[in-house]
Amino acid sequence: MRILVVNVNTTQSITDSIGEQAAGAASRGTEIVPLTPSFGAESVEGNYESYLAAVAVMETVRAYPEPFDAVIQAGYGEHGREGLQELLDVPVVDITEAAASTAQFLGRTYSVVTSLDRTVPLIEERLHAAGLRARCASVRASGLAVLDLERDEEAAVEAIVEQAAQAVEIDRAEVICLGCGGMSGLTERVVERTGVPVVDGVSAAVTIAESLVRLGLTTSKVRTYAPPRPKRIVNWPPQAG
Amino acid sequence: MRILVVNVNTTQSITDSIGEQAAGAASRGTEIVPLTPSFGAESVEGNYESYLAAVAVMETVRAYPEPFDAVIQAGYGEHGREGLQELLDVPVVDITEAAASTAQFLGRTYSVVTSLDRTVPLIEERLHAAGLRARCASVRASGLAVLDLERDEEAAVEAIVEQAAQAVEIDRAEVICLGCGGMSGLTERVVERTGVPVVDGVSAAVTIAESLVRLGLTTSKVRTYAPPRPKRIVNWPPQAG
Amino acid sequence: MRILVVNVNTTQSITDSIGEQAAGAASRGTEIVPLTPSFGAESVEGNYESYLAAVAVMETVRAYPEPFDAVIQAGYGEHGREGLQELLDVPVVDITEAAASTAQFLGRTYSVVTSLDRTVPLIEERLHAAGLRARCASVRASGLAVLDLERDEEAAVEAIVEQAAQAVEIDRAEVICLGCGGMSGLTERVVERTGVPVVDGVSAAVTIAESLVRLGLTTSKVRTYAPPRPKRIVNWPPQAG
Amino acid sequence: MRILVVNVNTTQSITDSIGEQAAGAASRGTEIVPLTPSFGAESVEGNYESYLAAVAVMETVRAYPEPFDAVIQAGYGEHGREGLQELLDVPVVDITEAAASTAQFLGRTYSVVTSLDRTVPLIEERLHAAGLRARCASVRASGLAVLDLERDEEAAVEAIVEQAAQAVEIDRAEVICLGCGGMSGLTERVVERTGVPVVDGVSAAVTIAESLVRLGLTTSKVRTYAPPRPKRIVNWPPQAG
Amino acid sequence: MRILVVNVNTTQSITDSIGEQAAGAASRGTEIVPLTPSFGAESVEGNYESYLAAVAVMETVRAYPEPFDAVIQAGYGEHGREGLQELLDVPVVDITEAAASTAQFLGRTYSVVTSLDRTVPLIEERLHAAGLRARCASVRASGLAVLDLERDEEAAVEAIVEQAAQAVEIDRAEVICLGCGGMSGLTERVVERTGVPVVDGVSAAVTIAESLVRLGLTTSKVRTYAPPRPKRIVNWPPQAG
Amino acid sequence: MRILVVNVNTTQSITDSIGEQAAGAASRGTEIVPLTPSFGAESVEGNYESYLAAVAVMETVRAYPEPFDAVIQAGYGEHGREGLQELLDVPVVDITEAAASTAQFLGRTYSVVTSLDRTVPLIEERLHAAGLRARCASVRASGLAVLDLERDEEAAVEAIVEQAAQAVEIDRAEVICLGCGGMSGLTERVVERTGVPVVDGVSAAVTIAESLVRLGLTTSKVRTYAPPRPKRIVNWPPQAG
Repeated sequence: MRILVVNVNTTQSITDSIGEQAAGAASRGTEIVPLTPSFGAESVEGNYESYLAAVAVMETVRAYPEPFDAVIQAGYGEHGREGLQELLDVPVVDITEAAASTAQFLGRTYSVVTSLDRTVPLIEERLHAAGLRARCASVRASGLAVLDLERDEEAAVEAIVEQAAQAVEIDRAEVICLGCGGMSGLTERVVERTGVPVVDGVSAAVTIAESLVRLGLTTSKVRTYAPPRPKRIVNWPPQAG
Repeated sequence: MRILVVNVNTTQSITDSIGEQAAGAASRGTEIVPLTPSFGAESVEGNYESYLAAVAVMETVRAYPEPFDAVIQAGYGEHGREGLQELLDVPVVDITEAAASTAQFLGRTYSVVTSLDRTVPLIEERLHAAGLRARCASVRASGLAVLDLERDEEAAVEAIVEQAAQAVEIDRAEVICLGCGGMSGLTERVVERTGVPVVDGVSAAVTIAESLVRLGLTTSKVRTYAPPRPKRIVNWPPQAG
Repeated sequence: MRILVVNVNTTQSITDSIGEQAAGAASRGTEIVPLTPSFGAESVEGNYESYLAAVAVMETVRAYPEPFDAVIQAGYGEHGREGLQELLDVPVVDITEAAASTAQFLGRTYSVVTSLDRTVPLIEERLHAAGLRARCASVRASGLAVLDLERDEEAAVEAIVEQAAQAVEIDRAEVICLGCGGMSGLTERVVERTGVPVVDGVSAAVTIAESLVRLGLTTSKVRTYAPPRPKRIVNWPPQAG
Repeated sequence: MRILVVNVNTTQSITDSIGEQAAGAASRGTEIVPLTPSFGAESVEGNYESYLAAVAVMETVRAYPEPFDAVIQAGYGEHGREGLQELLDVPVVDITEAAASTAQFLGRTYSVVTSLDRTVPLIEERLHAAGLRARCASVRASGLAVLDLERDEEAAVEAIVEQAAQAVEIDRAEVICLGCGGMSGLTERVVERTGVPVVDGVSAAVTIAESLVRLGLTTSKVRTYAPPRPKRIVNWPPQAG
Repeated sequence: MRILVVNVNTTQSITDSIGEQAAGAASRGTEIVPLTPSFGAESVEGNYESYLAAVAVMETVRAYPEPFDAVIQAGYGEHGREGLQELLDVPVVDITEAAASTAQFLGRTYSVVTSLDRTVPLIEERLHAAGLRARCASVRASGLAVLDLERDEEAAVEAIVEQAAQAVEIDRAEVICLGCGGMSGLTERVVERTGVPVVDGVSAAVTIAESLVRLGLTTSKVRTYAPPRPKRIVNWPPQAG
Repeated sequence: MRILVVNVNTTQSITDSIGEQAAGAASRGTEIVPLTPSFGAESVEGNYESYLAAVAVMETVRAYPEPFDAVIQAGYGEHGREGLQELLDVPVVDITEAAASTAQFLGRTYSVVTSLDRTVPLIEERLHAAGLRARCASVRASGLAVLDLERDEEAAVEAIVEQAAQAVEIDRAEVICLGCGGMSGLTERVVERTGVPVVDGVSAAVTIAESLVRLGLTTSKVRTYAPPRPKRIVNWPPQAG
């Protein structure tokens, strides 16, 4: 089984990290193919960059030679999963949705903890779009951006852990989904501080994609995700830079 | 990995059938242990029987010697999953919830089609309890009971297929979850008639339970599913009949 | 008119106390019959014990000789009312629901204050099941269990009163439903501190049950609460211990 | 105990009929005082007339000499109950809300059936305002007005009965609340046709008002229904015509 | 184009102020006609006064000679807009709704900040009635009444500004609607403190009324806002005092 | 005042038509600038094309020389408005949202009628994103695509009119928003058949954009629509083809 795992931003080191995380969760016999879009923001934070990432991810997948068995969109709270589902028959799994869907099997409510405050509304809307918001206790942000993280990882980790603890104690979350990655020891620290299960979106998405493939299930083509109608697309895709 | 798959009713032939379905979906290395409760209704249809099944399933699992890695409650729209989660650390997966959660990755909306009209409200409430009702287009029943099925399986299958078709055409469902089992060729007939993916709850539950175990995730013990407090339980469990 | 008031736990002294509360609210000519289940937890706190109580209450009522005119399930946030409704034609009233329904006639919003934190989700779900959650401002817990209460009743009362005050001031509740009983002077203390009406579930349930009987209304048998279909129930009910 | 039952329109014969219905539901020792407003529409159908009725009912109650123990506003889907609650400490019960609250104890869902189509939105909003809309399966109208009724009562009754049957069969209502009165044999006909319990709002309101009084409960004065602040009211109330 | 702007209370100086605000927002060629009701409270704060204002505004408009092109009801969270819509074909715009509708074009969420705590529920219900509550982050009150304002305007302004800041920081509002008027410099102070757009309801209502008129749109008469049916209205309207 | 009106697809004749519609609704002194994206689908029908249109519209606006006072995104149910709001301080108005917001001032509920069935979910989500779905009675499609329209306009118009009539009669819509354009006489035909007001999104958007500009209101920059953070965007925008 071959699963494409597409980063939403154009930073190769993040793709590498996502690929490792995915490979670690994959079953024997599953090939993880990490992909970086050929255009877009180095890190996606907000609607403009997220819409750009949506089309970049779609073009990346369209350009990848078949066959493959499933696609994972590896970005937290990003636009675009619906478009991929139109283009493909194979299952498409968004990591925000995979994490929430998994969390719901472990506790009555869950919270998402992310870094930047401005991504909170995007995550909330993504959970709505997937029908997974009813049991979301909160989406919380530490207020620190990726750049802050690079400057002082320890402070960034501490800020995230603190929000997770507040989600459990104040918002009554019973599971935490981490909507930010790349920080060493983050999961362990959150588990230690809160005592609740912590779900990683990339890992969850890999197991869900594998499950859908094993069950022989593919995207419904009856209405929302029907293939695009044949028509003229002008000046697209862009020529490689 | 060992997964207990507990039937909600006391009819052994149904347990056998569920066990086969589960084994067919399991990965190599997963041992499926089908269990039948020692008390309760031969078929569960309605609240009284469902509450009885809830405690029967719990006692069945309590009586089963450890170790095991996950438990699947194999009944559609039944009470009790929350109680099992209190008693266990390992993941507990209800097949109604597993089917809906899986369906949401395949289409924007899903419907559940079941046999008896009186189970519709129970299924709706189970989906609510799991935070999975927002994208449920409808829960439809054919109006035929299990006994009708035995008398004329072809009529029963046709009635289910007809409701599935109406779910897709009238309620705008994009995926069908089958909340009734044991009819030969039912899934194929629904796929053929509606053209949408059809999800079987037992199979979906097996892949989800396996995924949770592989990811090392266990039930949150922080509030709703904390272990029962130590106390005196009078005259329980009942002596085996 | 004869009304059965069934305790959800197996502690006789609590049944006595509930019986007194019910008798105090009953009209002349109403006979209150307090009942204790023959099996189950000495105090019900959580899903496992609550599911067990659900079937214990049902068996207690089934074993009680007719005639009787209504049944009250006297437990806060417990499972099972729907099962009783299947078994009986006469009205069934849950005290959680009776309190909330009554509170809604007195103020725009209400809060429930209970003792143990882990029962909060059960109460929330019970209010949902009864269609009474829209005007629920909050369900708050003092964090003290029944055992704490026995050790230091004054501290327990003070903790409850404090939560009630926060419900009014922070959550904007206009009425308080007390989801915990047996503490002397509790109602008066909450009224005094908050200035809002306080509803006791047992008393409210008695007046509602009486009203339904007087109006000649019985449980709808058309779908959800239709009588169980005739079928074989294996090894049930258990033999008396 | 003295309960004022205030008609929303100015037709004395309707007041008489409401008074009889209320007296029939009252306990021994309860005095029912039927009141007709001194101004307003002969029959209230729509927002303009309903707002007028709201202030007319309030002035009628203000003009009535104390003491009295509760007030019932006897109109289906009308404005104004909140204003009465500000003016009074004693309980105020709206018949739309009383019927729905009562119906919820009898079945999982209920429908309201009324005569004029234009009152459907008002009833829906009244149910929302009372926090009682979650379990409302539908509000249906026969499309016949009061005048039609006078011309051909049998046709009016038949049209209502037909809508009730559709509410049960199509909308899955398990209880019917009748939002129109004065037709002979209407309740019996609906029960006979649908097989579900039928709730009359006036009768339900009487038992609820009596219950609140017996429990010593009064309207919360903490926020929404606090008494009007002292201030100058210009040219009001109007001089009697 | 002539637009009636009807104050909900009977204080002429407030009518003058509203008229000025409206005129400032009007296009060239639009005539603003400020009107004061002939009866009712000097300031409307609560349900009783608001229901009274509803009928007073309706009678004021009924008594005003045609032609006019639109009507604005200038009160925050008041009853009555639906009645005006029945009486008129021309557009009717409520300032609470106009502000919220406008705010939604400027940010993902908005909060309303008002003076008296008791008006919060009325504003929430008005937003619900208009289908505009989904993006309302909060309705907050400073707790100061109009009389407090007269005694110490600076304190009143400061209290409002503080609530606006908390709406932005705690409730995550992105736009503020001011539900209280007449304080000098209030808008500027809120903008300065919060950095978010601030919407004034009267100004917003004028532009919406003008737009509806320019587009040739009138109130739908198909159901909810159909004209009152011809019938006898007793003792109404009252004779001028 | 200069308002950019950006078509979502790349067909110039549609841009011309939109431009005419916008100019017809604009006040004197407002300059309407119709724009066609330089890349994307000739007609946008579905998620892939809509995401592509989102970025094409953003790049079109970014490339247009300032100053301008507002931007209208002229597509029904399309992605992207949130991205434009990040890029700009001036108001951004989506025509789907403008139509719904306007409709809500005219009737209690509204329906949207569009051509292709597959765009229904996109329109529903767009209304959700704008907080305008609570009063949406339905989104209905005629099932005919643009190509069908070209083949037989009369049939296309009739199909749309029929859906509008069903929206009013079955779904109880009181206003119709037309989510498809370019058919001669369509609005008049719908008004004639249904008797309810019909709102055109482009015209509504022009008046709303003008109103926001006149009131001096700009997009909130506090969180969701904050400007993109400075960062490297790779290979974007594409070189003109």
